[in-house]
Amino acid sequence: MAINAVVWGENVHEQTNKVVQDIYPDGMHSTIAKALNADKAIKATTATLQEKEHGLTEKRLAKTDVLVWWGHAAHNQVEDEIVERVAKRVWEGMGLIVLHSGHYSKIFKKLMGTMCSLKWREAGERERVWVINRNHPIAAGLGERIEIEETEMYGEPFAVPEPLETVFVSWYQGGEVFRSGLTYRRGAGNIFYFSPGHETYPIYHNTDVQQVLRNAVKWAYNPAAPWTDILKAHNVPTPKAPEKIKQRGARLSAHPTEGKR
Amino acid sequence: MAINAVVWGENVHEQTNKVVQDIYPDGMHSTIAKALNADKAIKATTATLQEKEHGLTEKRLAKTDVLVWWGHAAHNQVEDEIVERVAKRVWEGMGLIVLHSGHYSKIFKKLMGTMCSLKWREAGERERVWVINRNHPIAAGLGERIEIEETEMYGEPFAVPEPLETVFVSWYQGGEVFRSGLTYRRGAGNIFYFSPGHETYPIYHNTDVQQVLRNAVKWAYNPAAPWTDILKAHNVPTPKAPEKIKQRGARLSAHPTEGKR
Amino acid sequence: MAINAVVWGENVHEQTNKVVQDIYPDGMHSTIAKALNADKAIKATTATLQEKEHGLTEKRLAKTDVLVWWGHAAHNQVEDEIVERVAKRVWEGMGLIVLHSGHYSKIFKKLMGTMCSLKWREAGERERVWVINRNHPIAAGLGERIEIEETEMYGEPFAVPEPLETVFVSWYQGGEVFRSGLTYRRGAGNIFYFSPGHETYPIYHNTDVQQVLRNAVKWAYNPAAPWTDILKAHNVPTPKAPEKIKQRGARLSAHPTEGKR
Amino acid sequence: MAINAVVWGENVHEQTNKVVQDIYPDGMHSTIAKALNADKAIKATTATLQEKEHGLTEKRLAKTDVLVWWGHAAHNQVEDEIVERVAKRVWEGMGLIVLHSGHYSKIFKKLMGTMCSLKWREAGERERVWVINRNHPIAAGLGERIEIEETEMYGEPFAVPEPLETVFVSWYQGGEVFRSGLTYRRGAGNIFYFSPGHETYPIYHNTDVQQVLRNAVKWAYNPAAPWTDILKAHNVPTPKAPEKIKQRGARLSAHPTEGKR
Repeated sequence: MAINAVVWGENVHEQTNKVVQDIYPDGMHSTIAKALNADKAIKATTATLQEKEHGLTEKRLAKTDVLVWWGHAAHNQVEDEIVERVAKRVWEGMGLIVLHSGHYSKIFKKLMGTMCSLKWREAGERERVWVINRNHPIAAGLGERIEIEETEMYGEPFAVPEPLETVFVSWYQGGEVFRSGLTYRRGAGNIFYFSPGHETYPIYHNTDVQQVLRNAVKWAYNPAAPWTDILKAHNVPTPKAPEKIKQRGARLSAHPTEGKR
Repeated sequence: MAINAVVWGENVHEQTNKVVQDIYPDGMHSTIAKALNADKAIKATTATLQEKEHGLTEKRLAKTDVLVWWGHAAHNQVEDEIVERVAKRVWEGMGLIVLHSGHYSKIFKKLMGTMCSLKWREAGERERVWVINRNHPIAAGLGERIEIEETEMYGEPFAVPEPLETVFVSWYQGGEVFRSGLTYRRGAGNIFYFSPGHETYPIYHNTDVQQVLRNAVKWAYNPAAPWTDILKAHNVPTPKAPEKIKQRGARLSAHPTEGKR
Repeated sequence: MAINAVVWGENVHEQTNKVVQDIYPDGMHSTIAKALNADKAIKATTATLQEKEHGLTEKRLAKTDVLVWWGHAAHNQVEDEIVERVAKRVWEGMGLIVLHSGHYSKIFKKLMGTMCSLKWREAGERERVWVINRNHPIAAGLGERIEIEETEMYGEPFAVPEPLETVFVSWYQGGEVFRSGLTYRRGAGNIFYFSPGHETYPIYHNTDVQQVLRNAVKWAYNPAAPWTDILKAHNVPTPKAPEKIKQRGARLSAHPTEGKR
Repeated sequence: MAINAVVWGENVHEQTNKVVQDIYPDGMHSTIAKALNADKAIKATTATLQEKEHGLTEKRLAKTDVLVWWGHAAHNQVEDEIVERVAKRVWEGMGLIVLHSGHYSKIFKKLMGTMCSLKWREAGERERVWVINRNHPIAAGLGERIEIEETEMYGEPFAVPEPLETVFVSWYQGGEVFRSGLTYRRGAGNIFYFSPGHETYPIYHNTDVQQVLRNAVKWAYNPAAPWTDILKAHNVPTPKAPEKIKQRGARLSAHPTEGKR
């Protein structure tokens, strides 16, 4: 069965900026979804900020295996309730691919536990995305590097936690470097951050970049049944302890109103 | 100069529960602070939930090197604004020691990016805290393990990210295990989670536990100047790029109202 | 196409010890291979110390996707040349599952870069293998824990590097704990260490343990083409640099006899 | 008391190459040791390949807190016995700083468990060492980057395990990137790899590079008593188990000749 991917697009600059419209006439999310659907193992649909509940209803998220996130100008318009909902699904096991300016999205900052700041410059310079972790599934089918002729520079320090793995590191013509592909896990959810993708350049039309996106969706997919009770602190009462023990000492939970949580 | 530590105590059960009062007549925070002050390299004071701004004013936090956090019954009474303030200081470089039921505090969940759930049982059973990472600074002066005769069981799975290092793993009489000492870094801030410390047992009177707390404060202390601009995405304009480059291509930031953030 | 797994068995105690013979009349390697072959995605064969080149010829290793290693009494009889050969294949991308007393095998110590020491006790006590990393592929199909009624105790500190992920932690009746399931990567090769498996108890007949072995083989399998030139330091001569640069300064490699390597 | 550092130099090119002699008339090791001694917290001496036991006797290593390693042309002339000796001291807690071409030294490959290969080019190009992990002790006193006008390029993929922390990433004029500052721990020993330092350029005269070396020595120093029995697998006999248990089941160790190891 195909992996159910949802590509979430902020869909703002595509409506307001002629340059972006020309590159992505159907929206960036549509271009990305189309690239994912080129692999029969993936079935990608789209959702946008402007839809009701941003297109991310409980019902839809429950059936989503991997969510791809692109946002930039309107992070603050994403409702906190939806962010909580997405986070819960990630903890349960939904994969999450965060793209480019999504480093400043509410959901990424929430899952990282940091502010995810970085340096930036919009000069149309050259970027070279080096494969650091050869033979990692996310680098499948790539050569030693991806060349992006015009890009926005993202520079270190990138204020994120030490990753599980560094997959890509980027070189910029202007002299900076950036850890452009990083993996994390939060609860049962696999997370991949990938930095290329500024909207005024045709980066998601690059076939190597598209390959990374498909690889990432397949890598992030966790086929295990969702860890639906991850929000709960389970009490294991004394008679149910794996080893036989006797209750002793004082306890708070003896008093119902002082139960743990 | 001594490390400025602030021990934050929720100070609720000490006011409402006779058992806890008997063990900690001056409050758990006072007992912990006293244990820290036994080391001349540390100068510890206390703060509690009930104080104005929970005792954690901007001014005080700015001078705090390491914050120790104990909370249990009143996590939700901690104001979000104060949580943000503490998080910012951690990102800047303030150390944070989170104790026991603090795994469910707002600040810990925020910094972990997960829900930090676990199993628990209040049976007064025996715990054996094993030193996994021998010669780690946090284990200085300990033997191979710490024995705690009566404890609350905390069991895996503990829904936290993979740590930087696992320092302690606990064995419980009732049959469970728990990663009881974990290190993390968020921004410039060192974080240590230590699970022993249920309030109905005299755990913070245990001299080995006190040694861990002193070690942890010294380990978490980061003498570097605070990373005060960690919240900002710094623009490096084209003329200031380390390498000489020419501006080219379209850009959003040419339009003031569409600047990055 | 099925994953090609080779189960390597030292096959010493099966020949010399009546207890082990009774539990594993065909050798431990055969029992393990049979357990792997219960999954059609895996095609497992065996190799033993006593065979020529320990059954691990260049040709056979070249076709091996995942190697499973069990050794105990005869680590020193494994020839260094074969150890080098196996290590090279791991770096190239072959998966490696190291079992129980294999922690002291030449190949594991070589890949870890440490001595991999631990505590031990052979008392037939109870072990409870807790799933720490729920929804990890290696834990697929398991409940919250595996119960092993009679086991050899392996205790911390386990002198290995911080793992990529901790999948299992074990509890022992006698009071110790052990990180019983750890993942690593070396080069392109995925490595999993799993501690249960002492030869005088029927541990590899336990269906949960068998499930872990199958999961581990599937997790360790890296479908990427082997990284065959991982041993080489590639020179990128100046005219072939991605960016145009001019040769300048002194250099050693101008003198053929002082070339790098 | 000062940290006892020993700077080990291969001291080959200083004897045979005019360019290197001019830059380092007293040998690279002497220049590095002098840079370390500029900090009163460090007391650095030197050792070279040509000395008896390469200057690394048991007695001297026992008193060494941190060893700094520079080698290039003569890795194979380092005796295996000395490599084992150094590795043991690292596991026990001695810090190790591996510089530049030392990535191919026997000791580094042994401790990493990988072949540590990389790309290289000797073109005298510009390198920019970016501080990735701001406020890390190893980056103390640095600005956002170190500029090295003439360098040897070291390029990814660098075949080493995922580090504990990435401290520096380098940009090269010719278009490559490299993780130029990485931390590891093996046993009780802290390890730092730092890539700048090709012998035909005056890199160890750079004051920022010298600052990194001093920082690294202080970071790597582990004041804990050496973990001298790390090579041993300790038996915990049944009567000495922390919890009272009964001996049961079959065991190998009942038979002296089949004792574990």
